Amino acid sequence: MTTRRAIVRMTTGAEPARTPDDLAVEAPLVLGLGGETLATLMRTPGADLELAAGWLVVESGVRRPDDLVTLRACWEDGTDRVHVTLRDGVTPPRPRAYLTGSACGVCSADVLDLALLARGAPHSPGWTVDRDVLVALPEAMRTRQRAFARTGGVHAAGLAAATGELLTVHEDVGRHNAVDKVVGRALLDGALPATDHLLVVSGRVSFEIVQKAVAAGVAGIVAVSAPSSLAVDLSREQGLLLAGLVRGERMNVYAGEDLVR
Amino acid sequence: MTTRRAIVRMTTGAEPARTPDDLAVEAPLVLGLGGETLATLMRTPGADLELAAGWLVVESGVRRPDDLVTLRACWEDGTDRVHVTLRDGVTPPRPRAYLTGSACGVCSADVLDLALLARGAPHSPGWTVDRDVLVALPEAMRTRQRAFARTGGVHAAGLAAATGELLTVHEDVGRHNAVDKVVGRALLDGALPATDHLLVVSGRVSFEIVQKAVAAGVAGIVAVSAPSSLAVDLSREQGLLLAGLVRGERMNVYAGEDLVR
Repeated sequence: MTTRRAIVRMTTGAEPARTPDDLAVEAPLVLGLGGETLATLMRTPGADLELAAGWLVVESGVRRPDDLVTLRACWEDGTDRVHVTLRDGVTPPRPRAYLTGSACGVCSADVLDLALLARGAPHSPGWTVDRDVLVALPEAMRTRQRAFARTGGVHAAGLAAATGELLTVHEDVGRHNAVDKVVGRALLDGALPATDHLLVVSGRVSFEIVQKAVAAGVAGIVAVSAPSSLAVDLSREQGLLLAGLVRGERMNVYAGEDLVR
Repeated sequence: MTTRRAIVRMTTGAEPARTPDDLAVEAPLVLGLGGETLATLMRTPGADLELAAGWLVVESGVRRPDDLVTLRACWEDGTDRVHVTLRDGVTPPRPRAYLTGSACGVCSADVLDLALLARGAPHSPGWTVDRDVLVALPEAMRTRQRAFARTGGVHAAGLAAATGELLTVHEDVGRHNAVDKVVGRALLDGALPATDHLLVVSGRVSFEIVQKAVAAGVAGIVAVSAPSSLAVDLSREQGLLLAGLVRGERMNVYAGEDLVR
């Protein structure tokens, strides 16, 4: 359930240290029914049959063990899959329009198809950002999280310049929604691609948050919490800076450490 | 962005106190395109045009402000809506099979249609749970969160008996996936509906987590973090116990306080 990557730990006033770090694995699981793809879940591997079964309890008429004739896990075409056969008479998952939860906001687009995300360089040649700017951004955003201060139950996202200036901050129960609001504001302002800017997020960084950052054309992501394995891999592939677990004067740089001075 | 509900604060050794509490609002926003529903987002109201615009940046070919001919917010049929008109030639959001992110796991089913969730009583007549059991559950689960201990980036969910015994614990980068794994294990064990049992979650409680709890037939939810407004409302409507912000010897009881002794 975990995997290891070499990252750079930075603490104000100390030399950066390159060390191995354990990350939560994030990888797709495709659920199939009668030869059709039912769903693609971005999940941490392990208990895949349980995940498929539990998903079906909410999504379909499955209520008893024998409603499931087979749950067959396999590795096909480079992807983990679970093929499901339902008992005759069990209501299958309903087709539907996009419907995204407060916890996700995207949960859509083909996560494995980054074609839509093709774009230019996320930063100008020679662009760098000061590490003191990075460690100060989460705290700067927190002073503007008014709903969080009252409820403790709201995520936030912001767009910042490399000077540390926080241009916009939006809050939402869904961390993906908060990012969408920031990206949407930038779009409406004619400020996309947001080259040389940083996306600041209050929570963890999953694959989809990096996807949104790539779509917005930002230079990097600064996060209060930890990224998943796939978030790190995609950030490296796309040339993004990814700083996480930014707490006080410490942070981990998971990708793009050359961009930090 | 916040709303107020009367809740009960409990601290070990002290009298329960009924007080008002601020909750993050969670409510649906329907995005429409050409008379069709594009998506239903569960979000915190505010910046709805930004949310719609940002969602389109990732989901469609929208890249510049004038790719959006109109973004029109309105209240129709009892729901917040944003109607979108795209410039001719802009790639619209692609239809697709279910695709759910690690942050959501469900992001599906018609969130406003609870027909699938109709069920019997979540607990036996006279069932109660000791408050000391409730406050101890998150810590008991934490000792079994092995991936979290290594990465700090993984959510967990568990199923517990009213005695405090933790029957299963699963971890995942997606908090919804962790719940699905627990519900799936119970299904495969023939243990659904999980009457008189408690779902323990490491994160916040959104509408969809309560939906899953209802589908599993549990008596209640115990959460480390705060619930949304809709999570509280649905728990009350369905007769579920909902305890949140369980930290040390303190917790907030948002619903079903009569079930706590």
